[in-house]
Amino acid sequence: MSELRRVEVLEPILKANDVLANQLKEEWSHAGIFAVNLLSAPGAGKTTLLEATLVRIKDQYRVLVLVGDIETERDAERVRALGVDVLQITTGGTCHLEAFMVRQAWERMKSCGPFDFIFIENVGNLVCPASYGLGEHLRVVLLSVPEGDDKPKKYPKAFRTAGVFLVTKMDLVSHFKFDVERVKSEALDLNPRLVIMELSAQSGEGMETWLNYLENARKKAGLGP
Amino acid sequence: MSELRRVEVLEPILKANDVLANQLKEEWSHAGIFAVNLLSAPGAGKTTLLEATLVRIKDQYRVLVLVGDIETERDAERVRALGVDVLQITTGGTCHLEAFMVRQAWERMKSCGPFDFIFIENVGNLVCPASYGLGEHLRVVLLSVPEGDDKPKKYPKAFRTAGVFLVTKMDLVSHFKFDVERVKSEALDLNPRLVIMELSAQSGEGMETWLNYLENARKKAGLGP
Repeated sequence: MSELRRVEVLEPILKANDVLANQLKEEWSHAGIFAVNLLSAPGAGKTTLLEATLVRIKDQYRVLVLVGDIETERDAERVRALGVDVLQITTGGTCHLEAFMVRQAWERMKSCGPFDFIFIENVGNLVCPASYGLGEHLRVVLLSVPEGDDKPKKYPKAFRTAGVFLVTKMDLVSHFKFDVERVKSEALDLNPRLVIMELSAQSGEGMETWLNYLENARKKAGLGP
Repeated sequence: MSELRRVEVLEPILKANDVLANQLKEEWSHAGIFAVNLLSAPGAGKTTLLEATLVRIKDQYRVLVLVGDIETERDAERVRALGVDVLQITTGGTCHLEAFMVRQAWERMKSCGPFDFIFIENVGNLVCPASYGLGEHLRVVLLSVPEGDDKPKKYPKAFRTAGVFLVTKMDLVSHFKFDVERVKSEALDLNPRLVIMELSAQSGEGMETWLNYLENARKKAGLGP
């Protein structure tokens, strides 16, 4: 009986999140905006990837960045330094972003547009963010070389629900026992449609491929020119 | 009104966890067991630290290891290879261990004792595990050099509630922009009583200090000989 009641409470919460997420996606698609949700453990390089991406595309595309953190505005400050529109979403203890938080942030920032891309940097957590759609067209999971090649099957939902898997900090691969082929085949076991790229925002390795993929994904979604 | 109801639901859950955690701690203290809860993001080196610790103490102390993971038994297998009693707690999607899970595991393993130490390796997550006591005498938070020196204030609860903060993978510090003094002073801002140690389970740096600390902590808790 108590089990039943728990389901009754949780189901509507997830459904409400999906409803809001779908509304956001529809609104963004209508406005020609391609939205990307970046998801990883702390320190996998989400902000560094964002910086490297923004530097390369900000003259060509109008970009909004929404940054989720439990406390502090540090990541937003790093992005703001590049002259891009950015809003910090401070979750105040919650370990993931939910669609209602993103909608609140979007309502505050939409008048700064129009935008071509929205990048949402989720809270650093490889578990719970995977359960909450934020209206994104593309979910990207990052795993950095120092974290180890055994992680996909230990944190499967992030890899099952993502469209792209970025192996980050590839410039460090010689310092670690990290088997790139193992991590790839394990991730593909979980999700055969996953697009996997190796990159290093530090050295620039793989950035070209990543940026091409982003541009093409936006076009394929019918949002590009 | 709905705010009030939410509090009513959450409070008893946390209290129930505290009650179970206190019962576990009491039972363990009575049996002379010192319990350690290891908490970090994925890939910070919890299992590697455990391996390095167990190799050094397993002939002198009787150790039980409880390993939390969302899926897979990988970490437990690594520990089991050392010939130590270990039980995997697979949370099936839940992003943290709770006291009731640890109690179930303990009930299954207690007959394998007596034990001097219990090490609980939490799910890789720097957020939610900090909210759930597991009956431990000592909570240890690990942050590895590759994760970055800006993490304590972004994930404050783990640092506020821990007794020890281990800066891990110190053998890599020359490859990263990682300011050890910054990370220490930031962690101490959050929690002035935090004991901070730098170590590398790989090179062995700092392991002696860590093991001495563990032995002394067990004695100070009145559990050692």
